[in-house]
Amino acid sequence: MPARPALLALDWGTSSLRASLLDAAGHVLDSRHRPWGLLHLPEGGFPAALQGIAGDWLTATPGLPLIASGMVGSAQGWREAPYVPVPADAQSVAAGLLRFEALPDTWLHIVPGVRRNGAWPDVMRGEETQILGLLARGAQTDMQLVMPGTHSKWVRVAQGRIVDFHTVMTGELFALLRTHSILGRPAREAGGGSPSDEAFDAGVLAVRDGGPSGATALLFSARARVLTGQLPAAHSLDYLSGLLIGEELRSLLPRSGSGPLQLVGDAMLCARYRRALAAFGRDAQVHGEDAATAGLWQIARRAGLCRGEGLNA
Amino acid sequence: MPARPALLALDWGTSSLRASLLDAAGHVLDSRHRPWGLLHLPEGGFPAALQGIAGDWLTATPGLPLIASGMVGSAQGWREAPYVPVPADAQSVAAGLLRFEALPDTWLHIVPGVRRNGAWPDVMRGEETQILGLLARGAQTDMQLVMPGTHSKWVRVAQGRIVDFHTVMTGELFALLRTHSILGRPAREAGGGSPSDEAFDAGVLAVRDGGPSGATALLFSARARVLTGQLPAAHSLDYLSGLLIGEELRSLLPRSGSGPLQLVGDAMLCARYRRALAAFGRDAQVHGEDAATAGLWQIARRAGLCRGEGLNA
Repeated sequence: MPARPALLALDWGTSSLRASLLDAAGHVLDSRHRPWGLLHLPEGGFPAALQGIAGDWLTATPGLPLIASGMVGSAQGWREAPYVPVPADAQSVAAGLLRFEALPDTWLHIVPGVRRNGAWPDVMRGEETQILGLLARGAQTDMQLVMPGTHSKWVRVAQGRIVDFHTVMTGELFALLRTHSILGRPAREAGGGSPSDEAFDAGVLAVRDGGPSGATALLFSARARVLTGQLPAAHSLDYLSGLLIGEELRSLLPRSGSGPLQLVGDAMLCARYRRALAAFGRDAQVHGEDAATAGLWQIARRAGLCRGEGLNA
Repeated sequence: MPARPALLALDWGTSSLRASLLDAAGHVLDSRHRPWGLLHLPEGGFPAALQGIAGDWLTATPGLPLIASGMVGSAQGWREAPYVPVPADAQSVAAGLLRFEALPDTWLHIVPGVRRNGAWPDVMRGEETQILGLLARGAQTDMQLVMPGTHSKWVRVAQGRIVDFHTVMTGELFALLRTHSILGRPAREAGGGSPSDEAFDAGVLAVRDGGPSGATALLFSARARVLTGQLPAAHSLDYLSGLLIGEELRSLLPRSGSGPLQLVGDAMLCARYRRALAAFGRDAQVHGEDAATAGLWQIARRAGLCRGEGLNA
């Protein structure tokens, strides 16, 4: 007898939507991926996207519980799920689920983001679910995570709880500078060359070894080094990437303890961060970015959503 | 008898062109301004712009010497005038003039930019002429200049020579973030409010008083403070401006001695920098940004270009 679906888990971000059908033990029965992130919803918006990716599953399993995490719960999302404060764990995140009728007779639970208050407030939305998934998979309960991306997150986990974090806009800044600034022009004119580890390392080392502190004062060196012949135009974006990632490390490594770092994210990006971390004398372990489904399962269990879980949990 | 024209001085940048007709004592006889910067040249390009702004003057005074400074001498300009190294003064800049036939029988001298070599190379083009103009007007021969703008320049002048400088991309970064990033969105949606000194100060103080060092780690607070209700969306750009200017000061003030700073540039922008400098406990004197013509005159004299200068100098 095929396993019976117990949960529909949705990882719903800015650029994509993944739907996974889980059984009562949390195993993935089926999974689908669509480019229907918040910025690319199909005609009909959120309801149409949900119907489109999982309508047949919902019809086949009446009363199937639904849970979603990511930007779908932001002010720009389907419904805004207010943040829960740090320290945050599966229990407090589950207690903050926002429940609403997403389709007729179909209730969706949206995972809240996590907020840090104080003079330097910060927010995350989606990463908390990935982190809870990593913990459920057996990651250490005390660790320093680095999650590189558009908005990199540096997250400290202690005793299995998210206790502190910082957002660094490295990825967005790189994309802006590459596309719109004078720094991107030489590379745009030179055309795309092959990536240069040498130029990347030069950027990282420039930050590590001196010069004026602070990225706004560093950035112009990506132009000046091209103009003075020290940097080939075709490699200037690799140098810029090294500057920005190096600056991220320079800013946040002093706050991240002394142990190995846990890198979570896109494999190529994690490889660059690992290379830069090595230049700063720090080890890192690389994890995949596919922990969201495991996290959604954990949160749903804590909230008592999963059908038949009493049989397996 | 009306004074006879002795020099045509062109201040020719990315966004505008100013032409001034000077007599043999360096006094301005007439001046014209056109929006014909490198990015907005008229049909016919550089020659048409020169003919359009000063054709009648050139016809009326055959053999009138011409000099130009600014991005017109860059690789994207009319002709590239190679940089001269620091230390740079009117003599070394004059020795680096690039002379070419810009219109038939009309020779134009383009002022070279200034270059600093080494591990952190940097370049300026146009600011050197403003600085030489300030010096000619009686500015101190030892001073620390701050020239805010798209690419702010922090310049150290000693014994009347440009000896060191750093470029900080504060203005370009602000424009990029305002126009293209997630940080600009709340203000774009809230519509333009009146400028908030309070939000600007909050950004400056956020940098001065702590938090993670480095702008990429600071920037996200402009979003997080809106999301957590600490900052009105309509004032978020003022806060961002405070963050970026504050970061510029945090990075470069430690390298700028202890005396008063000389601010040169747009009046409103200089007022903001002066306000931010006060928060860091530093005094500043504000100068106008109209020193380029005086600088062009100085350079032309050193090069022996000016007609009849022997009668007056």
